Amino acid sequence: MIRIGCVQSNPIFGDIKANLIQFEKFVTEADADIIIFPELAFTGYFFTSAEEAKKIAEPLDGLLIKKIKQIAKENNIAIVTGFLEKENGLLYNSAIAIDPHGELAGHYRKVHLFYYEKVVFAPGNLGFPVFEIEVRSGEKIKLGVLICYDWRFPEAARSLAIKGADIITIPSNIVTTTGMLLETLKVRAFENKVVIAFSDRVGTEKSVIEGKTEELLFRGGSCIINYNGDVLSIDSSQGESITYADVLLCEVRSKNINKFNNIITDRQAEIYFT
Amino acid sequence: MIRIGCVQSNPIFGDIKANLIQFEKFVTEADADIIIFPELAFTGYFFTSAEEAKKIAEPLDGLLIKKIKQIAKENNIAIVTGFLEKENGLLYNSAIAIDPHGELAGHYRKVHLFYYEKVVFAPGNLGFPVFEIEVRSGEKIKLGVLICYDWRFPEAARSLAIKGADIITIPSNIVTTTGMLLETLKVRAFENKVVIAFSDRVGTEKSVIEGKTEELLFRGGSCIINYNGDVLSIDSSQGESITYADVLLCEVRSKNINKFNNIITDRQAEIYFT
Repeated sequence: MIRIGCVQSNPIFGDIKANLIQFEKFVTEADADIIIFPELAFTGYFFTSAEEAKKIAEPLDGLLIKKIKQIAKENNIAIVTGFLEKENGLLYNSAIAIDPHGELAGHYRKVHLFYYEKVVFAPGNLGFPVFEIEVRSGEKIKLGVLICYDWRFPEAARSLAIKGADIITIPSNIVTTTGMLLETLKVRAFENKVVIAFSDRVGTEKSVIEGKTEELLFRGGSCIINYNGDVLSIDSSQGESITYADVLLCEVRSKNINKFNNIITDRQAEIYFT
Repeated sequence: MIRIGCVQSNPIFGDIKANLIQFEKFVTEADADIIIFPELAFTGYFFTSAEEAKKIAEPLDGLLIKKIKQIAKENNIAIVTGFLEKENGLLYNSAIAIDPHGELAGHYRKVHLFYYEKVVFAPGNLGFPVFEIEVRSGEKIKLGVLICYDWRFPEAARSLAIKGADIITIPSNIVTTTGMLLETLKVRAFENKVVIAFSDRVGTEKSVIEGKTEELLFRGGSCIINYNGDVLSIDSSQGESITYADVLLCEVRSKNINKFNNIITDRQAEIYFT
């Protein structure tokens, strides 16, 4: 049994110091094997130029990530979180997974960029990696990460499921109002027989674009969804919180649905997209 | 504006003659530009050996298809229907699209085989074709077909959307009770910005397998779903019916969702499934 906690936070735009204090409070409070934070959890979201974002971006071996590792170790907890990454002059909308010993277990850069992210970030160049984390109970999880707008692309979650992900974590800053978010997350879990852990931020941010102010409202709705599409827990408020659920990984590790059918081996990969 | 009719019928197992009479009644009654019938609409479903199914399978140029074409022409209506096809000694779980002039417009053989279909049918070898039909109003539809269990595979609907399908028709004989069917169909429409026309049969069939009788209950729930996930109409009864909806194809032909994003061109095909 794995206890997952999805953090719904409200980072302050541009204030890494304040956001790191808030981050540590959540980690200290959390009662879980693994805890997931939203996208760009230390900087806020609504950058409209790379120049602006570069000022507070962090390298993977920088001080911010060192501090996150230290907090994970001190609290003996696995952490997945989004952060604003810089490397070789490029910016990435990234996420890392840290194990309970404070070691880097996984690294993902957002593949599908949304809205002004296209003028700020380079598209992710690490593919869709699946990595193993041993949580504090000793149980090993195979973990994948998607970030926000990746949710719309069935190929993204599918790529992780094919590689054996048990849990797909989705740090997010959702601003769209399609009405189909929760249903799509349920289907991503169901069609791949995986657990979905969706951590979405709340609050608002403003930016001035070509002389006009645009405000984004972040939607919250952080949730944990079981392999069969059942919503195990959800925070539908606009407040900060940690949403918890316990999941059994044995359930996701067989993709059989009857004596003839297996939803992964039944794929006919050579026929798709041709 | 295109008027779609989804037939929810209850074919009699093994009785092509009776099912064809029923078929013609539905077509004559239908008030639509295009009408969709379920999977294996002329033979019934629950074959457990190829020998049994071969006896009533029909070639694409056989009498059954000639009769279907004639009925389409006489009623000036486009028709999509499932049928049990034989060719070169193999059986396929197939569907055809006939235009209002009675001409063959498209042909699909089910790619993902479910349950005992694996011992009866060969897997589809025509890929996921998209074909154009001019309906009686003169409007042209780009049409794709999936059959039943194909619904579970996001790659299948996606393959059709990438090729420009406006409407994905899904002749079906659903027997599973996952609780996620309607949600998944909604997401298939939403994630691809296409209309889904789902025609599912009702009734029951029995078969004796290794001395034990197994009964299948077909679930109905025929429905038409708009590009944004809205269920335009649904028959949730266990009765026979035609479910209608009017759709605007201009809505599905732009895949843009804002000034930066397009849900098809934003795909990063070289990264998936690697």
